[in-house]
Amino acid sequence: MITTDVKSARSFVSDDEYAEAFELAEKTYQQVKNQTGAGSEWLGWQRILKEPNDAELEELTSHAERIREDADIFIVCGIGGSYTGAMAVIKALNPYFKNNGPEILYAGHHMSGKYLKQLMEYLQTPKEDGELKSVYLNGISKSGSTLETALAFRTIRAWMHEVYEDAADRIIATTGKEGGVMNKIVAEEGYQKYIIPDDVGGRFSVLTPVGLLPIAVAGIDIQTLYYGAVSEYEGREQDQETILEYAALRYALLKNGHALDVLTSFEPELIGFTAWIQQLLGESEGKEGKGMFPAMAGYSTDLHSIGQIIQEGRRNLIETILVAKKPISDFKVQETQGEDIDQLGYLSGRSFHQINKSALDGTVEAHTEGGVPVLKIIIEELNAQQLGKLIYFYELFTAVYVYMLDVNPFNQPGVEGYKKAMYKLLGKDV
Amino acid sequence: MITTDVKSARSFVSDDEYAEAFELAEKTYQQVKNQTGAGSEWLGWQRILKEPNDAELEELTSHAERIREDADIFIVCGIGGSYTGAMAVIKALNPYFKNNGPEILYAGHHMSGKYLKQLMEYLQTPKEDGELKSVYLNGISKSGSTLETALAFRTIRAWMHEVYEDAADRIIATTGKEGGVMNKIVAEEGYQKYIIPDDVGGRFSVLTPVGLLPIAVAGIDIQTLYYGAVSEYEGREQDQETILEYAALRYALLKNGHALDVLTSFEPELIGFTAWIQQLLGESEGKEGKGMFPAMAGYSTDLHSIGQIIQEGRRNLIETILVAKKPISDFKVQETQGEDIDQLGYLSGRSFHQINKSALDGTVEAHTEGGVPVLKIIIEELNAQQLGKLIYFYELFTAVYVYMLDVNPFNQPGVEGYKKAMYKLLGKDV
Repeated sequence: MITTDVKSARSFVSDDEYAEAFELAEKTYQQVKNQTGAGSEWLGWQRILKEPNDAELEELTSHAERIREDADIFIVCGIGGSYTGAMAVIKALNPYFKNNGPEILYAGHHMSGKYLKQLMEYLQTPKEDGELKSVYLNGISKSGSTLETALAFRTIRAWMHEVYEDAADRIIATTGKEGGVMNKIVAEEGYQKYIIPDDVGGRFSVLTPVGLLPIAVAGIDIQTLYYGAVSEYEGREQDQETILEYAALRYALLKNGHALDVLTSFEPELIGFTAWIQQLLGESEGKEGKGMFPAMAGYSTDLHSIGQIIQEGRRNLIETILVAKKPISDFKVQETQGEDIDQLGYLSGRSFHQINKSALDGTVEAHTEGGVPVLKIIIEELNAQQLGKLIYFYELFTAVYVYMLDVNPFNQPGVEGYKKAMYKLLGKDV
Repeated sequence: MITTDVKSARSFVSDDEYAEAFELAEKTYQQVKNQTGAGSEWLGWQRILKEPNDAELEELTSHAERIREDADIFIVCGIGGSYTGAMAVIKALNPYFKNNGPEILYAGHHMSGKYLKQLMEYLQTPKEDGELKSVYLNGISKSGSTLETALAFRTIRAWMHEVYEDAADRIIATTGKEGGVMNKIVAEEGYQKYIIPDDVGGRFSVLTPVGLLPIAVAGIDIQTLYYGAVSEYEGREQDQETILEYAALRYALLKNGHALDVLTSFEPELIGFTAWIQQLLGESEGKEGKGMFPAMAGYSTDLHSIGQIIQEGRRNLIETILVAKKPISDFKVQETQGEDIDQLGYLSGRSFHQINKSALDGTVEAHTEGGVPVLKIIIEELNAQQLGKLIYFYELFTAVYVYMLDVNPFNQPGVEGYKKAMYKLLGKDV
C-alpha cells in the first residue's frame, strides 16, 4: 500500500491539535464508509473498485490495441477531470522523447484559436511518405456542452468527416449514460460510445473510460493500473491509519494558519500527477470560504525559482512531495576523463537516482528547519500498479479530509461562475 | 508602453490604504532611480538597456544563424534564471507543433536520470536518412558549479567530444567574465564564450546572452525583442504612473491579507512567461518572512480545476492575468452543417479570439464578484517587441515593489538552504 513520511509535518502540530484532528478524521471516515456524508450519491469511485467491470476493461484494451495498430495520432478532447487523469498517467509512464505507439495530443482543454489552428494544420500535413495521417479522436464530456471541448470537437470531427470515409469508426465519445448533446451526436453519427457512470464525478473519473481509453491507447496496461487501485481499496478497507494520520495533519495545519500547499516531486514525469491532485483537492475543498490552496511545482527545477520564497518567505505554506522509492533509472554520472576540471569527480559513477534522493532529503531537512511542514507520499516504484494505488489513496484521502472541513467534497458550484458571465457576454440564452 | 487594467483590484483597497502605498512606491522608485537601495550593484538590467551593446546583438544573431543552418537540435543547459527567460520567449512565439529550425531541448534543469538517459538515447538515434543528428549545446551558468546543470553539461559534452570532430565548435558557454569552473572548462576546451555581466542577476538576465542566444537560435528576432525593452525603459524614465499604481495595489493587497497571487493567462503560449514572472517576483520578495506566494495557472484550462477554489475558497488570493489585446489568430468556429446538433450554432463563424476574450471578461467579472482582486497586464499583441517591453516592465515593477517590503530584491540567500544540506549528504567538502 501507499506509505507516507510525515515526521516533518507532525513537528508543526501540537499533540492536542493532532489528537482532536485525528478523532475528527475517524468520524469523517465513517461518513465515507457508511455513505452518510453530503454528496454520498457520488461515491461511485469506490463502487467501481468493489465491483470491477472486467468486460469493459477487456473491451477498452482490445479497442485501444486496434487503435494503436492503425493510428498515427490519437486526440484526447476534454478539459478538467475529462483529461487530467489520463494526462497524469501517460506522462508518468511514457518516454520523454519517443512515442511508443500513436502520438497522444490534447485538444478542447482551452480556447486558444492559435493552438487549434496549428493543430489542424499539423493533422493536415501529410506524412513523410506523402500519405494522410491516421487520426483518431476521443471526445470526453459528460454532457457534451462544455464549451472548450465542444468547440474543438466540432472543429476536428468536421475535418475528419471530410477526409476519412471511415470517420465514424475513428471518433469515440465518452459521455453520460443518456441525455446531453454528446448523446445526440452519438445517435446521429453512430460513433462508438463509452459511458461515464452517473455516480462518478469528473475529477474522480480517471479509472472509468474517461481515463482508461486514452491510457490504454498510450500503451499502458490498464488492467494493472486498475487492479492496483483495487488492491489499495481492499487494503484500506482493513487499515485506514495512514489516511487518517495524513488527513488529521493536513487539517491541523490548515487550522493553525497554513494557507497553501506546494504539491511537487523530484521526478519530472510526476508533474502531471501533481496537476491531477491539484484539481482533486482544490475543487473538493475550495468552497464556502474554506480550503488550502494547492499550488504546483517541479523540483529541483523550481527550487531555483520559488525555492527562495519557500525557504524564507511568509511561513504560511506546507509542502507535499510525491516520492518514488525504487530507482526509476540506473543512469550514472560519467567518469572523470583526465583532470577533474568540472570538480564533479566526487560524484563519478554515482547514480542520478541517488543524487536526486540527496536533493530530496536535503530539501526536506532545509525546508523543515526553515519552518515549512513537509509531507512525503511514497510509491514503491513508478509503474502502473503503484499509480493505480496512488489514485485510490488520494481519492479516499480527499473524501475523508474534505468532510473534516464540513463541506461536500463532490460538488463544484463555483465553476459555474465564469461560465454564466461568459455565456451572457456571448449572447447565449441561459 | 505596457498598460494595465486594475479596476477590480482597486475596489479591494481603501482610499487611505492606496494613498499610503502609492506614496511609498514613489519613494522606492527613487531608490531604484538613484541607485540608493539595497543591492543596487545589481541594476545591470537597466544599464544594458541604457547602453545597448549592438555589436554583441549582431554577433549573437549571426552565430545563431550559423547554428540554425547546421543544427538539428540545440540544447539549452541551465536552471532557474539561466533558462526560464529563454523558454518563456520561445514558447510564446514559436509554433506549437512544427519547429521553425532546430529543435530546442532543455537539460540541466533538474536531476532526473530517466530524463537525461532518454535524452542521450534520443540524441544518439540517427535521423531517418541514417545520418548522425547535428547537435549543439549551450551551457549556461554564471559559476559553472550549479549541480543540476554541471552534471548534464558533463554528460552531454563528453558524448559530443566522442562523436563530433568539431565538438568544440558545437559547444557554447554562457558564463561570468572570469573565475568559476565554467571558465576553466572554456580555457581547456576552447569553447566559444558569452559573458553574463557581473551586475545582472540570474532572474534578470534574459536580455543578456543567457536568454538571447537560445532565443535567436529559435528564429526569433532578438534585435526587435531587445529594442522593445529599450523603448519601454525610455518610456518609463518619463512616465512611471502605471508601475507605481500596480506596485501600490499589490503592496496594499499584501498588507490587507492576501497571501498568494495566481499568475495566469488565457493564451496557453504565455504559460512560460508566467513561470518567468513567478521566479522574478518570488525570488525577489520571498525573504525575511515576507512576500506574496506566486502560483501559476493556465486558463481557461485551470478554471476547470482550481477555478472552484478561486471562486469560492478562502478569500486570501489575488489574480494577475497576462492579456494580449490584438487577436493572436483569426481562427473561426466551423459553420453549422445541417441541423445544429451540438447547439453551437450561435457561435458559428465567430473568432476564437473573441470567444476567449468573453471567457476572460466573464472570469474577471465572476472572480471580482466572488471576492478576488484581479489585475490585467496588457500587451498590444503577442510579438517580440511587446515581449521585450513586458520583460522590462516586470523587472522595473519588481524592483519598485520589493523595495516597498523593505527587503533587497536582488539576492537569494534561501536558495542555498537545500544545496548545503544536499552537499553534506553527498559527502562534498563545503
